[in-house]
Formats: sequence, structure tokens, C-alpha cells
Amino acid sequence: MSAGTAYESLSVDTLPERLKAVSALADHVGEDATAWQVQEVGDGNLNLVFIVTGPKGKAIVKQALPYVRLVGDSWPLPLYRAFFEYHALTRQAARDPGSVPRVYHFDEAQALIIMEYLAPHVILRRKLIAGERVAGLAEFLGRFCARTAFRGSELSLASGDKKADVALFAGNVEIPAITEALVFTDPYFDAEMNSHTTGLEPVIARLRGDVALKVRVQQALQRFVSNTETMLHGDLHSGSIMSTDSDSRVIDPEFVQYGPMGFDIGMLCANFLMAYFSQPAHRVADLADYQDWILGVITDTCSVFEAEFRHLWATERTGILYPASLFEDQGHDSTPACDAVLKGLWRDAWAVCGIEMHRRCLSLAHNADFEDIAYVALRARLEARNLMMGADLIHSAESLAGATAVCALAREYNGKDVL
Amino acid sequence: MSAGTAYESLSVDTLPERLKAVSALADHVGEDATAWQVQEVGDGNLNLVFIVTGPKGKAIVKQALPYVRLVGDSWPLPLYRAFFEYHALTRQAARDPGSVPRVYHFDEAQALIIMEYLAPHVILRRKLIAGERVAGLAEFLGRFCARTAFRGSELSLASGDKKADVALFAGNVEIPAITEALVFTDPYFDAEMNSHTTGLEPVIARLRGDVALKVRVQQALQRFVSNTETMLHGDLHSGSIMSTDSDSRVIDPEFVQYGPMGFDIGMLCANFLMAYFSQPAHRVADLADYQDWILGVITDTCSVFEAEFRHLWATERTGILYPASLFEDQGHDSTPACDAVLKGLWRDAWAVCGIEMHRRCLSLAHNADFEDIAYVALRARLEARNLMMGADLIHSAESLAGATAVCALAREYNGKDVL
Repeated sequence: MSAGTAYESLSVDTLPERLKAVSALADHVGEDATAWQVQEVGDGNLNLVFIVTGPKGKAIVKQALPYVRLVGDSWPLPLYRAFFEYHALTRQAARDPGSVPRVYHFDEAQALIIMEYLAPHVILRRKLIAGERVAGLAEFLGRFCARTAFRGSELSLASGDKKADVALFAGNVEIPAITEALVFTDPYFDAEMNSHTTGLEPVIARLRGDVALKVRVQQALQRFVSNTETMLHGDLHSGSIMSTDSDSRVIDPEFVQYGPMGFDIGMLCANFLMAYFSQPAHRVADLADYQDWILGVITDTCSVFEAEFRHLWATERTGILYPASLFEDQGHDSTPACDAVLKGLWRDAWAVCGIEMHRRCLSLAHNADFEDIAYVALRARLEARNLMMGADLIHSAESLAGATAVCALAREYNGKDVL
Repeated sequence: MSAGTAYESLSVDTLPERLKAVSALADHVGEDATAWQVQEVGDGNLNLVFIVTGPKGKAIVKQALPYVRLVGDSWPLPLYRAFFEYHALTRQAARDPGSVPRVYHFDEAQALIIMEYLAPHVILRRKLIAGERVAGLAEFLGRFCARTAFRGSELSLASGDKKADVALFAGNVEIPAITEALVFTDPYFDAEMNSHTTGLEPVIARLRGDVALKVRVQQALQRFVSNTETMLHGDLHSGSIMSTDSDSRVIDPEFVQYGPMGFDIGMLCANFLMAYFSQPAHRVADLADYQDWILGVITDTCSVFEAEFRHLWATERTGILYPASLFEDQGHDSTPACDAVLKGLWRDAWAVCGIEMHRRCLSLAHNADFEDIAYVALRARLEARNLMMGADLIHSAESLAGATAVCALAREYNGKDVL
């Protein structure tokens, strides 16, 4: 299948014939395509995902569809997102080696990426719903977020390289537009594709009636669309992480864009907080312990992030920002500068965290943590805690005393009935 | 001269022969090129500027040089800046009609723009040094800054159009790099090309010893390089404005880039403040009155800016930011949102204002307001006031109560000996 061929979506039946000549695939699964077994496993909202199993091994074939899978062909979506995903994966692999699946092959015309099959990794969200722990998760995620944030910014990159990259990823319009609408806007008005659990109406009315809250949300949107600090994953929730009991990888960076350095870790923390709030519906035994573990992942992820960011600040600050010529070379400690950068970063992170907690309950694309709760009244009660805490985070994003304070707030809401 | 021809710089002697076939020029000056008179008048730091006078009229031919004219061919500078200047001029003309010279012709290969000859306009900085007033100046500048800020942002533009434009102007690397270095960095360490008036050493030592100040300056740089809120002029000082006694235009947008909405008006105010502080060296009679007039231009420019920005907010808010669906459509006044946007904008503006006041006395490319003062001790005394007020602005950028407070501060420093 050459790059010049017109796009055609793959199927379980056509895949072996169409991809048998791609040596990067044959190298990993075996040359005899007639022996390949193909399974379609895409459970996300956007793409086809195939596991190809052959005599030599397995590989993933991910192909973009020209529309939003979750909605259907009434919502077209450009195939070029595979191009941006490919470029994001190569940069993430360079900035945090081993953090993402290895890419074997990219075909732009077919909008497909052939990549490493991760086993026995499963989607982290499923593990969190099932009450499973992942050793080293916080260390992995804290490092990933800090390294990609720092190394993709002008704290590290040469200015010309970063501007060229901003120009490249500025071509990714429709995918970030999903975030701009579904995350930052739709939850706060009666948008067409919104849905919510029955019973949440009073909470929703409070959020939409809170003008100061909406102003802060839109300020976060303004920063999201115009603050090109670093290359983001752009969709770093627990469905974009695959883990075993001791190893994790980040997948699916097709929402990549340049944006605020605090965006990814803020969205990530929101997804752990939603896992936390949903737990009372998923288990009785071990509930408190498991909820504690989740909050521990949040505080540890954030402290690993800070430590790694400060380490990179001290050892890799080669960009034009906060140069040594203004600080160290004049005998001045640059820690106050790093503190200021981190203060802005966490302000952005906690605002995004609160917004993500809202959108997953109010807009399109809810998450399984809550959606899997069949008992509607319980779901509403748990989602209400999550929603009200989200509002608190948005309001206090600038003054919050770090992840420990965030987790203390979560414990408070966890024991509270806000409906 | 076709677009395909290799670049060659023009001279007074070669211009008629080389440009005689450009009908857009002949249309304005007359077809008989042998009758053209050519004068080279470039007094800026970067380019060749010719006035071509023919039987029918006059036109300006501006050609980029492949190096910084001020420094020489030891500092190469890409010719592509003419491309960006051309695209900036067309956007400024669309966003604030009549604010910039009309473009007659653009030749990318020759890096040249043929444009309207403005007469009897002169560079505003010369008028300010000469103590001349310009009627309507504040109205013109306030509107220009507000309209270009608002209409170039996602408050107004469609998201995809704005992203495409960000990508286009991200190609302008070396020119913004001058600003990144000369404006935001060099003043605060012993950079090679720095120079300063003898006697300022104690003030310079205070500025460079102020770590909190340098942190704020670099935070402003971080926003300058990564906050693509709107298309900036990028170099809006009184040397980039041409005026008669009642008409003004903005010229020379080759430093165009996407950046913070407060950047242009901040740099502009700095240049009026420097004009203000330098006045005691330029006149005795009428000094207080003329200084009052300059401060009046600052406060009026800022209040026209606010009024125009709020008017555009109310009437042209068609972008994805702060949509009516979240405010007006729910019966909520969006004024608090506009207030929040303006608060961030002025924070950026006053920080940039203070930084510009520093760089024009400490880095490369000083301005004539001070440079024309032959008496060194007086120049140092006036520049010291300007430098210390700049530091105040940088420190208090977030809390300043608007242009009136800034002008009150200027009056205070104007009567103070800080050396």
C-alpha cells in the first residue's frame, strides 16, 4: 500500500491483503499474511484499531476514520489527525523515551500508524474501575508530563525549532476544536450534544448561573487556544494510558497541539479525581484504601512532576527563556523564576482539572468511571460531588496550595451530599 | 523585474531601470522612468527606503537588506521579512482601514514593497522632539491598537483562519528574535551590543540586582514568545508612526508576529513616556504644557483603546472565546468577562511598557528622544528617571489602576532625581 493510494478504511477482512507488503509490519508479525489473525478493538471515540497477530508476534494498526466514530458520519473529521498523532508520538518518544508505543510505520494517505502491541497492558481507566493498582504509575506520569512540558517549550527548544513546530501543529484545527467546544464551552450552556444524569439539574443550574465561573473557564479556553507554551498530548485521561500492574505507556496523542504547560497534568488529575469520586459505586471492601491509593497517585504524580521540572530547569534550561545570563551568571539563584513558572503552570492545571471534571459529566463523551454506574440516583450523587469540587478548583486555581490541598478538598466532597 | 529574478539590492541609480516595468509604480509616478527622481531616505535600522518622484506623483519603494543596516553585514537578517511586512500591512488595512500606507505592489524575490508616499507626514518621534502637537493622535492610535488586537484574535476570527495565520507568521523567526534579545534580555545583563549613557551605572546595577524584576521581565518574554493572542505590529514606537498636524499612519510592521494583545499599546505608551521624560532637554518655554500634552495622549490613547475594545466586544464577538451562548443568551452580562480580558491585557501592556523603557536606554537601538541630548549628564539624569519608572511599571503591572495612575507616576519621577 503506497502513500499515493487513495484513502480507504481497512476492515478485518481486507487488512492482510492490503498491508502484506508493508515490511515494517511483516517484520513484527511474520511474512505470511494468510496466517495473520486480525481483530478490531477500537473502543475509543474516533478510530479503527486492529490487533494483527501472526506467527512472529503482534502489532497494532490504527487508522483514522473520516468522521467521529462515536457520532457517525454526520460529524466528519479530517484524516490528517493520523499525521499529527505520528508526529506527536515521535516527539514524545524523544522527550520521554519509552513512554509511548514504538512506531513501526506511518502511511499518511491511509491515515494509518502501525505500532507496538502493548501486552499485557490494558486501559488504565478499566483498572481504576476494577480497583487495581499500578506500581510506579505516579512516577511514570509525573515524569512524562514534566519532560514533555519542559522539553517541548522554549525553556529547552531552540526558538526557530519551536516556531516551526507550532506552525506544523497549527494545521491540526478540527481536533482541538472538539476540545474547545466539548471541554471548555458545551458544559456551560444547553449544547445540542450534551447529556447528563437525571437529578443533576440543580447542580447544572448553579454552574451555569455562576458568571464568575464561566469567565474563569473561558479565560482557560483563551489560554488553551493562544498559549503555545509546549506540545501537549491534549487528551491525557485514564483512557489514554495503558498499564500492567507495574508498567505504563501513554497512547493516542491525536489531540496534540501547542498549549499551556499545565494542561496535560490538569486533565490527568481530573480523571483520577473522577475515578476517586466514582469508587463508592464500584466496591465496598477496600473502598477507603483504594480511594486513598488514587489520591496518593495524584499527590505523587504532582510531586514527581515538580521535582522533574525543577531538575530539568537546573540541567536543561537551554532555551531563550530565563537564561543563565540573567540569573546564575550574575550570581543569582533562578529558583524564584522557576517558582513563578510553576505557579502559572499549576494555576492552568487546576483550572483545566475542574473544567475536565465538568465536561465528563455534562457534555458529550462521558467516562466509564461514572457511566458504568447503573444505579442512577447514586451516579447523580457521586457526579454532583465531582461537579461541585470542579467548580471549587476553577474558582481557586490561582490560590490552591498544591495537590495535597486538592486531595484534602476531594476527601471533603467525598463525604458530602451536595444534591 | 519578475518575482523569479534573484535578489539584488536597489540603488538610487539602478532603481528606475529595474522598476520601470512595474505598472503599479508607473501608475503612481508616471511611465517615463527616465524622468524619475530617486532619493534614499531609510533612516531606520534595517532597510533601504526610496522616494520615487515622477511627473505623476510619488511613491515609496522599501526593500529589505540581507543584514541589519544599523550593524552591517556581520548581522545577517533574512529577506523574508518583506513578505511578513506585506502580509501584516494587508491585515492591518483590513482591520483598521486607512491606518497604514496603501500597498501598490509586492515582489517577494526582491523583498520589496511599493507603497503610498505619505505627505506631508513626518516620523512622529521627530515631531515629539520638536515639540509639535498632532490632533487626533490618541484617537487614531487607540483605535488602531484596539481594532488590530481584537480583530486579529479568536475573539473575532474563525479558529481555523487564526491558526492558519499563526502558522504563516511563525515563519518570521529572526525578526522576533531581535525583540526577544534586545528588548527582553540584553538590558538585564552585560550583552555585547549594549551601550548606555555614562553615569547610569548605579541604576543599571540596581536593575540587574533586582531578581524579582528579572523574573517578571522573563515572564513577559514567556508570554511574548508563546501567547499568540493576536497579530501584533510588533514594533509600535513613535518611529513607526508618521503624522501631519492632524493625520497619522502606522508604518513598518516587519516585526509582526502573533503575541499578547497588550504588547503594541504597551510599547507605544513607553515611547510616549520616553518622549515625556526627555522633554526638559529639548525645550524650556512651553515645557510643562507640552509634557502635559504628551501625558494626555497616553491617557486618551488608553481610554480610546478601552472604549473601542469594549465596543468591539459588544458588536463583533464572533469568535469561539466568551461566546454569547454562555453569557448574553443566558441573560448574563458579559462585562465581567471583558473586564477580565482587559485586566490581563493591561497587565501585559504595562510590563512591556516598563521593559521598552529599559531597553531603549540600555541595549542596542536607542531612541533619538534621549540620544539627541548632547549634554551627557542631563541625558543620564533624564534616562535614570525613565529607567526607574520602568522598573516600577514592571513590578506593579498587575495592580496598576490604569493610564491615569501611570501618568501620575510619570509626573512623580519627572520631578525626582534618582541618580
